[in-house]
Amino acid sequence: MFEAKFSNAGLFKKIIEAIKDLVSDAPFDCSESSLCLQAMDGSHVALVSLKLEIGIFDVYRCDRTISLGLNSGELNKVLKCAKADDTLMIQFQDGEKDTVTFTLEDNKGRKQDITLKLLDLDNEHLGIPDQKYSAVIEMPSAEFKKVCSDIATFSDTMTIIATKSNIVFKGSGDAVTNTISYSKDRTADDEEDDNDRVDFNVKEKVTLNFSIKYLTNFTKASSLSPRVRLSMSDAVPIVIEYEIEGNGFLRFYLAPKIEEDKNGMDE
Amino acid sequence: MFEAKFSNAGLFKKIIEAIKDLVSDAPFDCSESSLCLQAMDGSHVALVSLKLEIGIFDVYRCDRTISLGLNSGELNKVLKCAKADDTLMIQFQDGEKDTVTFTLEDNKGRKQDITLKLLDLDNEHLGIPDQKYSAVIEMPSAEFKKVCSDIATFSDTMTIIATKSNIVFKGSGDAVTNTISYSKDRTADDEEDDNDRVDFNVKEKVTLNFSIKYLTNFTKASSLSPRVRLSMSDAVPIVIEYEIEGNGFLRFYLAPKIEEDKNGMDE
Amino acid sequence: MFEAKFSNAGLFKKIIEAIKDLVSDAPFDCSESSLCLQAMDGSHVALVSLKLEIGIFDVYRCDRTISLGLNSGELNKVLKCAKADDTLMIQFQDGEKDTVTFTLEDNKGRKQDITLKLLDLDNEHLGIPDQKYSAVIEMPSAEFKKVCSDIATFSDTMTIIATKSNIVFKGSGDAVTNTISYSKDRTADDEEDDNDRVDFNVKEKVTLNFSIKYLTNFTKASSLSPRVRLSMSDAVPIVIEYEIEGNGFLRFYLAPKIEEDKNGMDE
Repeated sequence: MFEAKFSNAGLFKKIIEAIKDLVSDAPFDCSESSLCLQAMDGSHVALVSLKLEIGIFDVYRCDRTISLGLNSGELNKVLKCAKADDTLMIQFQDGEKDTVTFTLEDNKGRKQDITLKLLDLDNEHLGIPDQKYSAVIEMPSAEFKKVCSDIATFSDTMTIIATKSNIVFKGSGDAVTNTISYSKDRTADDEEDDNDRVDFNVKEKVTLNFSIKYLTNFTKASSLSPRVRLSMSDAVPIVIEYEIEGNGFLRFYLAPKIEEDKNGMDE
Repeated sequence: MFEAKFSNAGLFKKIIEAIKDLVSDAPFDCSESSLCLQAMDGSHVALVSLKLEIGIFDVYRCDRTISLGLNSGELNKVLKCAKADDTLMIQFQDGEKDTVTFTLEDNKGRKQDITLKLLDLDNEHLGIPDQKYSAVIEMPSAEFKKVCSDIATFSDTMTIIATKSNIVFKGSGDAVTNTISYSKDRTADDEEDDNDRVDFNVKEKVTLNFSIKYLTNFTKASSLSPRVRLSMSDAVPIVIEYEIEGNGFLRFYLAPKIEEDKNGMDE
Repeated sequence: MFEAKFSNAGLFKKIIEAIKDLVSDAPFDCSESSLCLQAMDGSHVALVSLKLEIGIFDVYRCDRTISLGLNSGELNKVLKCAKADDTLMIQFQDGEKDTVTFTLEDNKGRKQDITLKLLDLDNEHLGIPDQKYSAVIEMPSAEFKKVCSDIATFSDTMTIIATKSNIVFKGSGDAVTNTISYSKDRTADDEEDDNDRVDFNVKEKVTLNFSIKYLTNFTKASSLSPRVRLSMSDAVPIVIEYEIEGNGFLRFYLAPKIEEDKNGMDE
């Protein structure tokens, strides 16, 4: 038997909204200690990795390791039924081989049970090696979302250049170049709210190009956390991480574009 | 001569917004005591019945019974011109055989006259028999709207099951069943605001199926009243009623789907 | 060298949003004392005239008269990148023959440089003769916007009738006439906020017809100023003027429709 209860359905709703356009068939791996999901996007370019530790749940019970395959579009529809303060219980009974039940409840006597059929998904778990990164940037989620949106206005590639003294996001189009920069001096000294700061720790200069389409897609997770962390090294995928209430994370991995010169010519 | 003045155009605006997609040609029956409208929807499945008693109006004068046929789409455009606090005067002069004038006025010297051509409508009044219903549910309009929207997410038929102890709204789709229930104990005991309660009085168990498309359409009237009343008996049309400021009502009648088994199979 | 800095990018953003659908290729004439723009719309029916005096800018430096040709669609995209409190610096270096740089900065260490290619535009300046007008109306921008939107609901021509005692905006469609009027007595006497008043000064009665499509387009400038001024005489273009912070203006000129009878028949 598997049971997991969120005191507020809104959290799981935001998670599913953030990943549903990347991952249509979502294998949720339930274990004693956590609920995890790892899946490539449809075009096998980006990797999504979700981890929700037991501390995030009001109730959590998982008698044996199990993988529940769900269509994230249907799951998103289920969660759209949730009102702001509804609780959400997810239940899978060992007897019922092919359905999961989602129960939404408010404190006014309304109870909604939605039963979804399970999908039979091949679940090959990728080992993601631990990695030291040359550059790590932490910034407000909303700020990174705006950067992606601004660069996407004129370009479909974003170049990120991280040096010890500043961070530059860059894109160029037919008749336009667009450069957004954050310098160490100006962002570190202010006494502003820590959540507003753009912090970065760069051991070695990194210059990487990414598909702006994917980056923009990842920023749908912005509502999950006030801060986002970007970890980069040359020639390995960037990791874009949103922490979830101190008890988990949603991470996106995206390989850099290699033929940057060719891309530059195409534009 | 016919004259009817609303102190606030917004009320009539909401009424017309609620019915315009169901009834395109609207025959308004003006009598000494009230302004009424009764019409089938375009596909002759649902019946709309509106009654506005004299007490709703600031000014009301109707020298003789008369029916004014208006296109509800055009009427809706007229009312979209109304600002929040505009008054609305509707006038028909016996001399002017084929136009009605709508006058919108604010308190800053703006006056807007819109003259609409009358339609020549066949107006066959259906007698709606008074009826005792087996089950009557009263609930917040917004709650019923949400129920319809949630069921519509996965299904095009809504099953309503009313028993003495609880009310169930149900729909099912390809790989989903969706059940929303309200139980007597939990809704009746709370000291919550009366407007928030789901109340029901069931003499005999009723199970009926309805087209969710029509029900959803009816819920456009939700802004007219904080509460909605559903009256049901086996094999007769459901009545969905929104009271209007204690001086009238907007009612929708919809016959249940009969071949529920067949419907179930089609899904 | 040319440099102009807005303490708030929002003002220039609103200006460009207001004109971008009328004027795609925008020649900005920079002189010692002002930044001006004059251009016909794409179908050569309306004339747009913008003047921003030096007092509007935080920093302004123009060593020699120069015309900078910019695509207003691209310029609009640039300005969409501006956050609410960003400053905007526009720079053109004499050495860089064909680009202008727009720099957006917030007070948190973010700096965004967007470089746009200049267009080579023929810039024939039309002399607009000074003119005494028979009728001048001043009214809230939002009120005029609403008038245009209401008339556009049923008609594609707006008739404006200005007399000494009242102002009438009129439109008619197939089965509808729509008349909005403001009378002197009611608008002048009130002690209401001056910005809410509809004032008019009519020396001679004027009746003119205009394409509602263009008028509606002009009202995109409503956010620039709380008030709009309409100046009219028989057989000459109407002038619709939005003042800009006491240091400039955005004016639209539109010739009246002449064959009003024919138009009437077409409807």
